[in-house]
Parts: sequence; C-alpha cells; structure tokens
Amino acid sequence: MPPQRVRVPADDLRSLAVEILTAAGLSADHAEIVAGAFIWANLRGVDSHGVSRLPRYLELFDKGEANAHPHVEAHRVRDSAILVEADRAPGPLALTLAMREAITVARQTGVAWATVRGTVHTGAIGYYTSMAAAEGLAGIGIVAGVPNMAYQGARGAAVATSPLAIALPAAKHPDFVLDMATASIALGKIAQYKARGELLPEGVAVTADGTPTVDPAEAKIPLPVGGAKGSGMSLAFELLASGLAGNPIVSSFHAGVKGHRQNATLIAVDVSAFLPVDDFKAIVDHTIDAVMALPRAGDDPVLVPGARGAASYEERSRDGVPLPPKIWAEIVEAAERFDVPVPQPVA
Amino acid sequence: MPPQRVRVPADDLRSLAVEILTAAGLSADHAEIVAGAFIWANLRGVDSHGVSRLPRYLELFDKGEANAHPHVEAHRVRDSAILVEADRAPGPLALTLAMREAITVARQTGVAWATVRGTVHTGAIGYYTSMAAAEGLAGIGIVAGVPNMAYQGARGAAVATSPLAIALPAAKHPDFVLDMATASIALGKIAQYKARGELLPEGVAVTADGTPTVDPAEAKIPLPVGGAKGSGMSLAFELLASGLAGNPIVSSFHAGVKGHRQNATLIAVDVSAFLPVDDFKAIVDHTIDAVMALPRAGDDPVLVPGARGAASYEERSRDGVPLPPKIWAEIVEAAERFDVPVPQPVA
Repeated sequence: MPPQRVRVPADDLRSLAVEILTAAGLSADHAEIVAGAFIWANLRGVDSHGVSRLPRYLELFDKGEANAHPHVEAHRVRDSAILVEADRAPGPLALTLAMREAITVARQTGVAWATVRGTVHTGAIGYYTSMAAAEGLAGIGIVAGVPNMAYQGARGAAVATSPLAIALPAAKHPDFVLDMATASIALGKIAQYKARGELLPEGVAVTADGTPTVDPAEAKIPLPVGGAKGSGMSLAFELLASGLAGNPIVSSFHAGVKGHRQNATLIAVDVSAFLPVDDFKAIVDHTIDAVMALPRAGDDPVLVPGARGAASYEERSRDGVPLPPKIWAEIVEAAERFDVPVPQPVA
Repeated sequence: MPPQRVRVPADDLRSLAVEILTAAGLSADHAEIVAGAFIWANLRGVDSHGVSRLPRYLELFDKGEANAHPHVEAHRVRDSAILVEADRAPGPLALTLAMREAITVARQTGVAWATVRGTVHTGAIGYYTSMAAAEGLAGIGIVAGVPNMAYQGARGAAVATSPLAIALPAAKHPDFVLDMATASIALGKIAQYKARGELLPEGVAVTADGTPTVDPAEAKIPLPVGGAKGSGMSLAFELLASGLAGNPIVSSFHAGVKGHRQNATLIAVDVSAFLPVDDFKAIVDHTIDAVMALPRAGDDPVLVPGARGAASYEERSRDGVPLPPKIWAEIVEAAERFDVPVPQPVA
C-alpha cells in the first residue's frame, strides 16, 4: 500500500457518486448504474476507471460530449445480433444495457453479439464481461476509441489502446477475468513512474512527436504491446466495433474530427448450449489449479487473470476504498459544487 | 528472397499434396480440402503452415494421433451455436466445415459461434476467417493446443502459443487479415535466427528448463507476447475453446497426457445485420488508407494486417511457391513412398 490514502467505505462512496451524478442531471436509475461501474472498478483495484473519473464525467457533460439525458436503445437487428444506439450516453449506461440484452438473447440462441454505437468512456470493460460470467455465461468485450497509442512503424498517436476483456465462470476459484489494453503500458502507469522518479523500461512509450523515451515526463504515447500484434489487434477492434456500428473513429480522427467518442462490442455465449455449466466451471477450476501449481520462474507468484481483482474486491469491500488525497479532493470539490454532503473517510 | 529455393507452380503443388494425401488414405474430397489449406498458407507466405507439414501429417496418421477416415459432424446445438465433433480429423477438415456452417448460420441469425472439439493441427487459422471475409462476413478464430509456451511467472512450457485471427472484408484494399500467435516469437523464427547464426532479441525465449537465453540453439520455449497479456490471452483461448468443447488440454497435459490435440472456436458475423456490406467495406478501406498515410517512424513501411499476405499470394500464384530444398526433398520422399509422380520445379 502506498502511504497517504484516504479510505472511504464502498457504500458511502457509491452513494456519494450517485448523488453527484443525479445533481449533474442523470436520472436516479442512470446514476446508480454509472456509480455501480465506478465502484466495481475501485473495489477490483482498477482505480483508473473508478470514482477518479467523476470530475471528467462532469466535464464531458458540461462540454456536451457526453449526454446526461440519453435515450439508450437496444435494437435486435437479427435473432442473435443487437445494435445499441448509445446517444452519447456514459459507457456504463450503454454497455450495461448491451450486456443485459446479450445475456437474454444468448440464453435463447446460444450466442449474442451486441454492437454499441456512439458511447462515451466505457470504463472497465471487465465489468460488463463479468456480468455474463456471474450468470454462468462467457462474456467477451472490445472497445474502440480515439487514437492515443502508436501503430507499428508509424509516428504519433495512430490508433487507440483498445482493450479486450474475456470473463468466464469458475466455481472454486474467482471467475476468470482478463481485461487488457493493447498498449505495452497504461498512461496511468507512466504517471506512477513519474511520481516515483523512476525511468520507464525501454520500448514502451514515445514522446508527443514520436521519439522513443524512457523519461516518464516526456512519454506521451504508449507503444502497442508486441509491436505489430498490439497495433493489429487495436486496428481490428476499431474495424469490428466502429465498423459494424457504422461510426468510424480512427479514420475520422485522422481526417480532423477530435473530441471524445467510443464504440464497443460485447458478446455473450451461453455455456449450457455446449455442456452443463458445472462441468465448464470444473474445467476452469482445474485449469487454474494446473497453472497455479506450475513451478515459479522467479520470486513472484503465478497469477491467473481475475485473481488479484477478486482479492482486492474482498479486501476493499471490508476495509474501504483507498483513494489518493488529490483524487479525493477533486471528488469533494465536485460534491461541494452541487451541495452534496461528503461522507467521512474511515482513515 | 533467400537463395536456394525450389519454385513449384501452385497448382502442381496442390495436385501433389492431394495425391499424397489420397495415397495416405484420405478420401478425394478430404485431400482436396487439406491440400487447399496448405497451398493457401504457402501462397500467403505462411510457409510454416504450408506443404512443409505434409510429412508431419503422414506421421500423425501413422501414429494414430490424426484420423485419416474421420466422421466430422456439425451439430447445431442452438440457433446460433454449433459444435463440431472433429473425430481427430486434420484441422482443415474440421475447421473448414465449422466455418462453412458458421457462415450459413450467421446469415440467418446475425452471428454464429462454432466450437471444434478434438482436431489435429488447425494450420493457419487466417484461412478459415478469410473464408468469412471473402463472403462479406467478419470472421474470428482462436485455437487451443498442447503447451509449448511459457506462462508469465512460471517455469517451463505451460500454455500454448494459441493464435487469434480476425478477418474483415474490404473493397479497394485486400481483406484485413490479422493472424497472430500469443507468443513473442514463433518457433520457426527462432530456427531462422539459428540458421543465420544470429542472436535472438532479449526476452523472447527461454531454454527447455526455463532459463532466459538469446542463443537460438538453446531457445526451446517462447515467452508470451507482453508477459501477462500474451499468457492471459492464451489461457483465455484454452478455456473458451477447450472449455466449451468439454475437452481440456492444458490441465490434462499437466496431469501427464501428452500427444498432439487441439480445439478451436470460429465465429462468423453477418455484417449486413448491422449495415450494408458495401458501407462496411468502405469504412475498412478508409481506415486502412488513414493508417497507411501516417508518417513513418523509421524506414519501414506502415503495414496493415493482410497486405503482405495478399501481395505474396499474387506473386506466388504467378511465379510459383518457393520451398527450401530440405522441405522439397521431404515432400519428394513422401511422394516416392506412395509412388506418386513428382512435378518439375520451375527453377
């Protein structure tokens, strides 16, 4: 644990987020959904997608880039295909609806593909794929966004750090939840190197003009993970998510259209179409057992995607969500803007 | 072009492969399908999955690990879910059927998910996803296999170099075809370093006992691309492909079950469920244009997945498939074993 954290009980933090979002114009239902996605991320330890985003959301509402009164609509365009018109809704509203619909449809037809068109900041997509896993389905998600990452061989921000998430139900172990960006380093991680006064590893980031650097203060653009592999995945996710949404981001960005915007795709697969869910969960459990039992290459434990998040969830649900004082101060400021009472941190 | 290649016209090579496979016991239909997958890989420049595999296939038939007389059956377990029982068929037989079924089903319901259970050597999965793209659909594929790659933090071969392929239709440009392993380097590439007497880059492979090495002669196990990201994807693909097939490979391998075996998943999405196919292709074209127009970071051109393979396909269809003399000699030996006449190389 880094020093100097403000710990806030999760329920207090959730209520605070709901009240701020409601005061900013969201309906009570919508505020609950958005706050739920934030708090899940904080509890799982994915703080970059937690309540630290609240001030940025308010800014997106103020600038009109996000819509506080969206009409989010899911259209079942084919038996197993769903198109969600997000109407510039915050991601949690559009993607929660998309995954709920996908789960319902997958239970009927075995698999559902939901394309989300024109949302804003999806947040941690592991959240939506985990919704599927929690109900015994497999969940897959990808997001397309505005270029903030290099493309193999090209100079400057070319494509987005578009993430991939895959969540699968387990029984004995926590659900398997892979949630990874296609970048070799997260922008938030670069900031942590800077705060600690450490140099970056070689080959993870470049300056704003595309020069390789290990100075976290100069590093503005992450490089794709595995070079052509990471940038190829990012481009594929843009074409799949934005292409099927009929709402291209990468090509329009390079034609001069800036401003925040995202598209996404969520897939749900009904495991029980193929085998009893308990049998599938047993395979997941046994496979995780086999991987965790492998001899270690060094001192670090062998981890399976989702295990660390599940441990964090348990610990933080009990002890509260630790927030850096700077983030807490920004949230308090947002609360004061709307005369929302601020809960007392526990430590 | 490396020196000392035997060039064989593609049609001659295809006929030769068909005759050898037929002589080895495959039906004429099956031999055509397997040879088609080989020749496609050779034409695209993916020589590791081309006719160089013929001797290995014969060995798999001889050992009984692959079935020369398989009953491959596709069961539509739900409206959009297909389970293909591969009966230890060579991958091209099981996966070609799986993708054909998936395309048919996706045209009805928008999306189809085909799980392939118990196949042998899928070959280049870009081949099957490209079948979808060629018909105006999106194709996605993953494969699970026997551990031959490290897992982040663990020692030894832990998971497979399980590939991901995504193919999307374009109009002006060649179809977008991403086909990547989850390893940071291919075993075939390590062999090329060895042949050239060059050292490997740091951090791409380890020795058989898990010690990091840059000596290609000692390097036996590739490391996952991006560490936890590559190994997380590989594990997710195992759980998705093998888990839904009810046929776990990673856990059974670590429990002592060796021998070659694979499972796979292929997905087809009917683009026209979401927008006119021509509109989608235009988005793909414009996005590829935007990426190719980016300023170069160095001397190398900015490439889009599928472009190099398409150029190779054109060149080799015209000029013949170049094969290393050693590979050609192995194929000639296989032909002589069955008294199959060998075509004359063009150079």
